[in-house]
Amino acid sequence: MKPEDLKAVRAFVKEHLDGRHAEFDTFQDKPADVYEKFRETGLANWWLPEELGGRGLSLADGVEIVNELAYGDAGVAFTLFISVLGTSMVQLYGSEELKKRYLAPMAERGSFCATPGSERVAGSELGKIDTLVAVDGDELVITGEKFISTNSDFADFLVVVGRSAEDPEVHHAVLVPRDTPGIEVVKRWNVIGVRASYSYQVSLKGCRVPVANRLEGSGLRLLEIGLNASRILIATTGLGIARRIRDLCMTYAKTKPLRDGTLLENPVFAAKLGQMEMQIDVMKSHLLRAARDYDAVMANPNAADLWHRQGTLKSALTAKMFCGQAGWDVASVGSEMFGGLGYTDESPIGKLMRDMRYISIVEGGDDVLRDLVFSRYVIPVPRRT
Amino acid sequence: MKPEDLKAVRAFVKEHLDGRHAEFDTFQDKPADVYEKFRETGLANWWLPEELGGRGLSLADGVEIVNELAYGDAGVAFTLFISVLGTSMVQLYGSEELKKRYLAPMAERGSFCATPGSERVAGSELGKIDTLVAVDGDELVITGEKFISTNSDFADFLVVVGRSAEDPEVHHAVLVPRDTPGIEVVKRWNVIGVRASYSYQVSLKGCRVPVANRLEGSGLRLLEIGLNASRILIATTGLGIARRIRDLCMTYAKTKPLRDGTLLENPVFAAKLGQMEMQIDVMKSHLLRAARDYDAVMANPNAADLWHRQGTLKSALTAKMFCGQAGWDVASVGSEMFGGLGYTDESPIGKLMRDMRYISIVEGGDDVLRDLVFSRYVIPVPRRT
Amino acid sequence: MKPEDLKAVRAFVKEHLDGRHAEFDTFQDKPADVYEKFRETGLANWWLPEELGGRGLSLADGVEIVNELAYGDAGVAFTLFISVLGTSMVQLYGSEELKKRYLAPMAERGSFCATPGSERVAGSELGKIDTLVAVDGDELVITGEKFISTNSDFADFLVVVGRSAEDPEVHHAVLVPRDTPGIEVVKRWNVIGVRASYSYQVSLKGCRVPVANRLEGSGLRLLEIGLNASRILIATTGLGIARRIRDLCMTYAKTKPLRDGTLLENPVFAAKLGQMEMQIDVMKSHLLRAARDYDAVMANPNAADLWHRQGTLKSALTAKMFCGQAGWDVASVGSEMFGGLGYTDESPIGKLMRDMRYISIVEGGDDVLRDLVFSRYVIPVPRRT
Amino acid sequence: MKPEDLKAVRAFVKEHLDGRHAEFDTFQDKPADVYEKFRETGLANWWLPEELGGRGLSLADGVEIVNELAYGDAGVAFTLFISVLGTSMVQLYGSEELKKRYLAPMAERGSFCATPGSERVAGSELGKIDTLVAVDGDELVITGEKFISTNSDFADFLVVVGRSAEDPEVHHAVLVPRDTPGIEVVKRWNVIGVRASYSYQVSLKGCRVPVANRLEGSGLRLLEIGLNASRILIATTGLGIARRIRDLCMTYAKTKPLRDGTLLENPVFAAKLGQMEMQIDVMKSHLLRAARDYDAVMANPNAADLWHRQGTLKSALTAKMFCGQAGWDVASVGSEMFGGLGYTDESPIGKLMRDMRYISIVEGGDDVLRDLVFSRYVIPVPRRT
Repeated sequence: MKPEDLKAVRAFVKEHLDGRHAEFDTFQDKPADVYEKFRETGLANWWLPEELGGRGLSLADGVEIVNELAYGDAGVAFTLFISVLGTSMVQLYGSEELKKRYLAPMAERGSFCATPGSERVAGSELGKIDTLVAVDGDELVITGEKFISTNSDFADFLVVVGRSAEDPEVHHAVLVPRDTPGIEVVKRWNVIGVRASYSYQVSLKGCRVPVANRLEGSGLRLLEIGLNASRILIATTGLGIARRIRDLCMTYAKTKPLRDGTLLENPVFAAKLGQMEMQIDVMKSHLLRAARDYDAVMANPNAADLWHRQGTLKSALTAKMFCGQAGWDVASVGSEMFGGLGYTDESPIGKLMRDMRYISIVEGGDDVLRDLVFSRYVIPVPRRT
Repeated sequence: MKPEDLKAVRAFVKEHLDGRHAEFDTFQDKPADVYEKFRETGLANWWLPEELGGRGLSLADGVEIVNELAYGDAGVAFTLFISVLGTSMVQLYGSEELKKRYLAPMAERGSFCATPGSERVAGSELGKIDTLVAVDGDELVITGEKFISTNSDFADFLVVVGRSAEDPEVHHAVLVPRDTPGIEVVKRWNVIGVRASYSYQVSLKGCRVPVANRLEGSGLRLLEIGLNASRILIATTGLGIARRIRDLCMTYAKTKPLRDGTLLENPVFAAKLGQMEMQIDVMKSHLLRAARDYDAVMANPNAADLWHRQGTLKSALTAKMFCGQAGWDVASVGSEMFGGLGYTDESPIGKLMRDMRYISIVEGGDDVLRDLVFSRYVIPVPRRT
Repeated sequence: MKPEDLKAVRAFVKEHLDGRHAEFDTFQDKPADVYEKFRETGLANWWLPEELGGRGLSLADGVEIVNELAYGDAGVAFTLFISVLGTSMVQLYGSEELKKRYLAPMAERGSFCATPGSERVAGSELGKIDTLVAVDGDELVITGEKFISTNSDFADFLVVVGRSAEDPEVHHAVLVPRDTPGIEVVKRWNVIGVRASYSYQVSLKGCRVPVANRLEGSGLRLLEIGLNASRILIATTGLGIARRIRDLCMTYAKTKPLRDGTLLENPVFAAKLGQMEMQIDVMKSHLLRAARDYDAVMANPNAADLWHRQGTLKSALTAKMFCGQAGWDVASVGSEMFGGLGYTDESPIGKLMRDMRYISIVEGGDDVLRDLVFSRYVIPVPRRT
Repeated sequence: MKPEDLKAVRAFVKEHLDGRHAEFDTFQDKPADVYEKFRETGLANWWLPEELGGRGLSLADGVEIVNELAYGDAGVAFTLFISVLGTSMVQLYGSEELKKRYLAPMAERGSFCATPGSERVAGSELGKIDTLVAVDGDELVITGEKFISTNSDFADFLVVVGRSAEDPEVHHAVLVPRDTPGIEVVKRWNVIGVRASYSYQVSLKGCRVPVANRLEGSGLRLLEIGLNASRILIATTGLGIARRIRDLCMTYAKTKPLRDGTLLENPVFAAKLGQMEMQIDVMKSHLLRAARDYDAVMANPNAADLWHRQGTLKSALTAKMFCGQAGWDVASVGSEMFGGLGYTDESPIGKLMRDMRYISIVEGGDDVLRDLVFSRYVIPVPRRT
């Protein structure tokens, strides 16, 4: 990433996100101007490979970008990066044809994709996914109910994970263009934070796509692999929100009278901010390390195979866990910092706290991740840190 | 309190509060039916003394009542008990005349009073209160801006704390009828939780009341004394909210599929709920002990004097601190319990979390209370526990 | 309890425990003088009923006493109260004959008893206890290995819990005089804290006692019932240790230079001590409430039956959990308060920290207790707080 | 570092440290064999530059080495790396002559140096250091009392920080050979953890050294600069201890019976270990990032100047804070994992917990570091993360 790119992101945040927290916190239609404006920076879907017309930026760059975006608004950031979950699955396990037809336009137009994984019963237990994928000649017929899926309504395509009608032990991941007949957006979820993002319940009824739209390999494994990048970037929003909270505290403390001076001179305040800065600093170290782990695999010519063996990346799991927990700690301390005013809509701290909460919830709660870390990275002795 | 009374409260909660969390969470006009319905139980302003036509219930009874109310809705509970702050000041330090004129009707009609203490600059530093109280013949003239004051708009009267125009070292507490010319409700605060409660910014411009409306003694000390009951009841809402969160988790866990069974059978879930129940149990012990401390002073014929020497009650401070902290812990754990659904408005957990947050914020944040506990109850060796 | 009694305990602590922390922390033989001195206060085994020549003090009194003793030394306190586990089992479920023969002398002489429950494999899973109790004519023959048992070596008798040789589903609790042939003290455990207490591994080989030494009812249930008093008193030691840590911090802060003054004037220090005092205050409320719960059952003429239905008391479980956790928090904060000096043997803080740790470990770790609270007091809706 | 080097460290740990925890925990004379054995690996004082005959390893390498050493024994690790504090001051700010005379032999012989900074009154407030450094012709005369100084007794030399007798505003750092007349080791501190390390109280009475032994620049600034490497390595011991605790838990869990299986199959255990592994993983990321920050400055030809401007490195402060806190959390959880056995000397967990505690205490407690982070890295906006 060139330094100008990061500058452009910062300028975008300053110009188009700052000061609009109340607006982004309402439950409005897609705030088209913001996404249009981001597109103008040329950085939309920054991770798409250069050979498909994208910017080809690394995940380490992505961490820097999302850090800035989330400092502006975590919901906007989430909308802008979550397509990486689906595109990385297609990029690694889709045919050249599929990439050209579906990823290249996303690079060009800065459009979105969605990856409906979870189902009402399945929740985090992906093995329980029950959407059916049946072969009918040279077509696949897909039928099922997807519970929560971000960006689905306005996505170019959905990467749907479902169970094979032929072999219930097998799951597939299939690229389904958004305009395929049978896709119905049942409802938009009224989320309690990151409210500038858009998550839907989606129904698929007999959606037909060519067999060639099926990605190579086990759909569950592919989903696991795709979640690596998105989990690291979700964790990164925690860094951005935490930095915003810190700065909000500092700005407030400068003018808040306390005894004969201001809150800024209070040692207890200093101690809290020193602790917060430590947490922020550690978050950043770990996020960049996780991104480098990811980038190292992606740089390998056999990345697709490597990922198949690797599955879920340890540092992606621990990054989401750590940033969710440290972030919640920062938000909890921050939410007590503004006195009564902080309990009203005149302060953005309430929104920031709600935004922060999503990190420990989406794409696997901590109970699920702790279990994954234990079974994959503690039980096998050589995989321990 | 007779067992029927508590039963009546529980029936009120079941009939009029349960299932209406979404409604109470909107920013609506005073939900008149609820308050009317509570009045019908005969328990409105339950703490007012029998000689003034009230129920004369103890604070220990109040803890039981508020525990139930807050289980229903913390905002409704707050509205129903917060008048105790002003009435206890009047009851202890007002003239018989004043009590008859102002407290007796509150007992009869179940109406409200308000106690505007905080000011924009003063915040928790009550000594900085700058509202002026000037003597003009046999009248007091009161002028100032009160920042956040609950129930002010529809209160029978305001107990205003201000600085003496004659002696800046002295503060007074003055009963100002709501219909006194010069009182203007500047705005209602759009709070982020306990949204069925009503807090206002209030302006007083040359409000004139008889000198006899001045309560006996230092206004700051009186405010401190009045805060004992209200802080204990604010802390109690934390108990009620925590119990609701626990029950919500249990109800959810019974039907949430997990592996071959339900979440209820999961040992990690059991551990979390066991821990929660412990915290709830300890909250209750400490709240009842704090209430008994309070009731013991009130039962003394020289309660007014005793309180003057006592000032802020240790267990009232520690109850608010503890219930705020343990409650926040319960809410934090609870908010991760419902997966993605818990991050939408289909689950009340988001509201309960926001409700819980107010405990550590209103009537003194933990920084202020820790400082008070330290200077009043740790420095003087015999006052240590 | 008469005020003089508590005064006597305080005098004992001041005269015989204060300033001897280093000595009590070494692994020495039974510090006979201390126990002899406590006997002289007339309070040894203060809970034994008056009809057996004891003081008949309530558990609430016991909380006050142990609070003071543990302020002096937690290990000494533990040695002095842990006999309550066995004596309460005998008192409730032993024959009159048994009580007269074994409890009366303990009241008179201030001697000790032990209750070997745990076994190497059984640990906290009491149902796995494998010590065998066989009937042979009018004698019981007891054989087994008890893992950790406090006071066993110098006890008057052991209350041994074992499995019936006749019915493996049944457990018995049997009073075995210490001088019974076949009892062998295998080793004394070198514990890492409460080092003035004495825990042993004990072997029983064909120990013969009259059938009448068997207590009435299921041995496991009896053990559970006996643990109520001891768990509450173990929790109480946490209160005493925490108060000692607080006072140690205050004494240190008064002379520790910091900037232009002393640590005492530092707001961050004040905040920590204010928080500590809150935790101490809450511990005390909950311990007294738990003790009152216990005393209420004991005051009932049908206490033995009531306990059989009740089993493990909720507040006994939550008291041990809470005091262990809050106490550990106090110890953790305290252990950082004394700079480098606090990391040497010149400060007692290291010992106090190690002492504190035992609360969350003996008589059931928090994992076990959380599980018990959940299954006994959360699952059954009416038993929730 | 070559892979063989790390292998050699691991072999050293396995052969010479493993299984000796009880021995290292006694307060014995310098365990000469261990240090001799480490010297045989050729890695003693691994950081000394190649031009002085050292191995010239980076701090990132140092993190890997200390991680392994501390897995073996944190006290041994501390003894082996703490010389870096003094040598880095000499390396950066000493004359070529000084380096050749004092650092080269340390590289060759694997010997030690000490850096007595703290004084009884000064504690963490280095500005209060009162040891006097007076100029007498071409000699410096040094007199003062140094409170806690590691390795002093058997060090080749001491880097003493003292106040200029000529200008009380100025502090110097002076290299004082250990055999200088006037140095007296007053006592060895009986520390509560890392007991295989050796800290002393040292008295300097009129110690005379050539003026050329004075390092270039403010002694306080130099000390601050020297602390960067040592703080990062102290933090690293937390990683090593945490890994050892984790492995201890896993080994225990495999054979500890629980219900029908072992502790290993218990989901609550899995959750704790998953959380622990996350904390370990994050520690490692941050330590390596801090080390790279350090190495980047050292790689600069103007490192000495750069450090003068930089002073205390942010990531060195946050690494010590984070690893101390996360490490204490791991130790606290770990110390509850082994039941009663974990409370005896038959388990090393008690020692590991005491070892862990030193991280948050030596070279600045968290209160001091939070304050430093706040004033140096939060107040100046561009230095925020």
